[in-house]
Amino acid sequence: MRFTINKNEFLKGLLIASHAVGSKNANPMLLGFKLEMSSLGLEITANNDDIAIWTVIPLANEEKEIIRNYTLGVTLINAHLLTEVVRKMEGEEISLEVIDDRVAKVDDGNTNYQLNCQSAEEYPDIDLEKGGNIFNVSCADLAKLVEMTAFAALDKNTRPILTAINLRGEGGKLTATATDSARLSRKSVEIDPSIRFSANIPARTLSEVVRLFENNIEVEIAASETKVIFSFGNTVVKSRLIGGDYPVSNAIIPTNFNYRLSVSASALLNAIDRVSVLATDRAAVVKLEMTSDGIEVSSSSDQTGSGAETLTAVQYQGERLEVAFNALFVTQAVKALVSDDVELKFIGEMKPFVIVNPNDDSVVELITPMRTR
Amino acid sequence: MRFTINKNEFLKGLLIASHAVGSKNANPMLLGFKLEMSSLGLEITANNDDIAIWTVIPLANEEKEIIRNYTLGVTLINAHLLTEVVRKMEGEEISLEVIDDRVAKVDDGNTNYQLNCQSAEEYPDIDLEKGGNIFNVSCADLAKLVEMTAFAALDKNTRPILTAINLRGEGGKLTATATDSARLSRKSVEIDPSIRFSANIPARTLSEVVRLFENNIEVEIAASETKVIFSFGNTVVKSRLIGGDYPVSNAIIPTNFNYRLSVSASALLNAIDRVSVLATDRAAVVKLEMTSDGIEVSSSSDQTGSGAETLTAVQYQGERLEVAFNALFVTQAVKALVSDDVELKFIGEMKPFVIVNPNDDSVVELITPMRTR
Repeated sequence: MRFTINKNEFLKGLLIASHAVGSKNANPMLLGFKLEMSSLGLEITANNDDIAIWTVIPLANEEKEIIRNYTLGVTLINAHLLTEVVRKMEGEEISLEVIDDRVAKVDDGNTNYQLNCQSAEEYPDIDLEKGGNIFNVSCADLAKLVEMTAFAALDKNTRPILTAINLRGEGGKLTATATDSARLSRKSVEIDPSIRFSANIPARTLSEVVRLFENNIEVEIAASETKVIFSFGNTVVKSRLIGGDYPVSNAIIPTNFNYRLSVSASALLNAIDRVSVLATDRAAVVKLEMTSDGIEVSSSSDQTGSGAETLTAVQYQGERLEVAFNALFVTQAVKALVSDDVELKFIGEMKPFVIVNPNDDSVVELITPMRTR
Repeated sequence: MRFTINKNEFLKGLLIASHAVGSKNANPMLLGFKLEMSSLGLEITANNDDIAIWTVIPLANEEKEIIRNYTLGVTLINAHLLTEVVRKMEGEEISLEVIDDRVAKVDDGNTNYQLNCQSAEEYPDIDLEKGGNIFNVSCADLAKLVEMTAFAALDKNTRPILTAINLRGEGGKLTATATDSARLSRKSVEIDPSIRFSANIPARTLSEVVRLFENNIEVEIAASETKVIFSFGNTVVKSRLIGGDYPVSNAIIPTNFNYRLSVSASALLNAIDRVSVLATDRAAVVKLEMTSDGIEVSSSSDQTGSGAETLTAVQYQGERLEVAFNALFVTQAVKALVSDDVELKFIGEMKPFVIVNPNDDSVVELITPMRTR
């Protein structure tokens, strides 16, 4: 096996596949890239049990030659090491030649490396066969579904199903829902009405997938019972699914409210940031006190003191209401809406409240208040 | 106690003093700033046993008023909290008023905080009285002395004297020496020939001091038996000294060499960086193989493989020589010289070698080679 390859394209491919390399892994083989020089080009595979990535660097891109002077073959090389070596090399082209399935000679005409490598024979086969529902969505839409919801998924594995984003196709809508049980985030985009499915995909995997989109326009999603496969550009990503029914129905989001606050997103975020500086060890609790005379954002701690700020340029409808919340939850929710102004809608002091973008009803954030003292 | 102060000047003063606040400290009082409104201005004191900082924000700077509407007094406030509160406030001016030695009201017209504070009565007195040798050096010179040597001091406390920089005035020279016993770094600047002293100042403290220089021109150093005091601008820094004789004499640096290599600093640094990527767990060992035909930089590891690079545009005088070294030591030494070209001078394979700037004999780096296998 031998090839000479454009350095930047090589590095780009390695960096894509590196998203599926675990830093600590039970199987040391999975710390490697499987490199296969085939008639398609240079195929790079990585796999860490949660997620597998296969990407191919083609022989040429339109007019431009990327790979030349090659012979077919396959090998397994430490992923981190190969990526760092290629990153640090300065030549425009890099040659790689595998000798006896034991050493990969890597050379850019200036530095030459002899990297230990091994036979790829025992590298686990990765099943990239597509099954179940297969459909296309725009990469921009999938990125929005993930970025607007992933932060609300549980980040510990105490309840595995809540570490997933539930992706559901129904009634012409593709809806992503994430919840850690104290808050929920949901976003929908339009899809072909014929598509009906529901899959619980680890939020971390989905975040990796959308980070890999570069200039890609469309992504094909194939969701079966046990796995989901994303195909875009020259890359295929497979993720395991989390079994079981996702514990959230549409009915959980209230629709009738008694109090409504419209406010500039940045003014609210800044006020929360300033007053929550007083929080000490646990999650910062911030209180919102709303009356027709004015809106006060405040926080206090026995240990450090208290801080308060009056929000101006707001609109409030309703009686006097006091609601306390986890500052991080509201901050993440408001940021996810990507809107100059946001609307907070309440039923009562201890009932979950929603935060929405007044100009976009495809996304909703739901937060359970906290008790103060 | 009360004052209204320009926000940026307040923050600047707090950030200076924050260099002496410990993050974990046996005495919780030392997590606070002592703030004293006096006829000098606002005096801020912090102290963490190793280092004490006193800085004053004057009432006015030339024409510009900085502090107004004040009454004298003193209090103790959590340093981290006050710094964060002031940093986050957006107003041009901040008012601070202490009520009953218990609460500090901090207000910028938008946000108002009530920060817990306490009496400063029990805050330890800091002895800033100057004794011993007192002299001035330029801030630029002291910064160079520290930046060119501090990295070579020991960073663990296994041998306390080696965590210091030895600062010595003798024969019209102020010389800084640091060593961790495997390498040594020394830099001199000129001073008044009448100054004679030697002090072992913790390298970490000296690094903090020179980081505090802003537009300061000169720093006054007062070095006595037990402490050293640096005064510059509106700030005074006191450091403890490390007792005992510094274990390095002038004679340790060789002066006669059998082999000399001149090389571009960046070419050498890049080559070391590229080949040392193969190092696995321990410090990267890099080998330099010098012959009249060429210079090779290489590194190898049983686990990962080997890498080698030929340095071009070098000048070498001497027989064939192979020297192995800790890549980090040579990298830090070459960077400290701040020179386009550097000269490496050797006595033999296992003898300490020096790295110098061919255009500046006031600085020298000495490194003990390593054995390869």
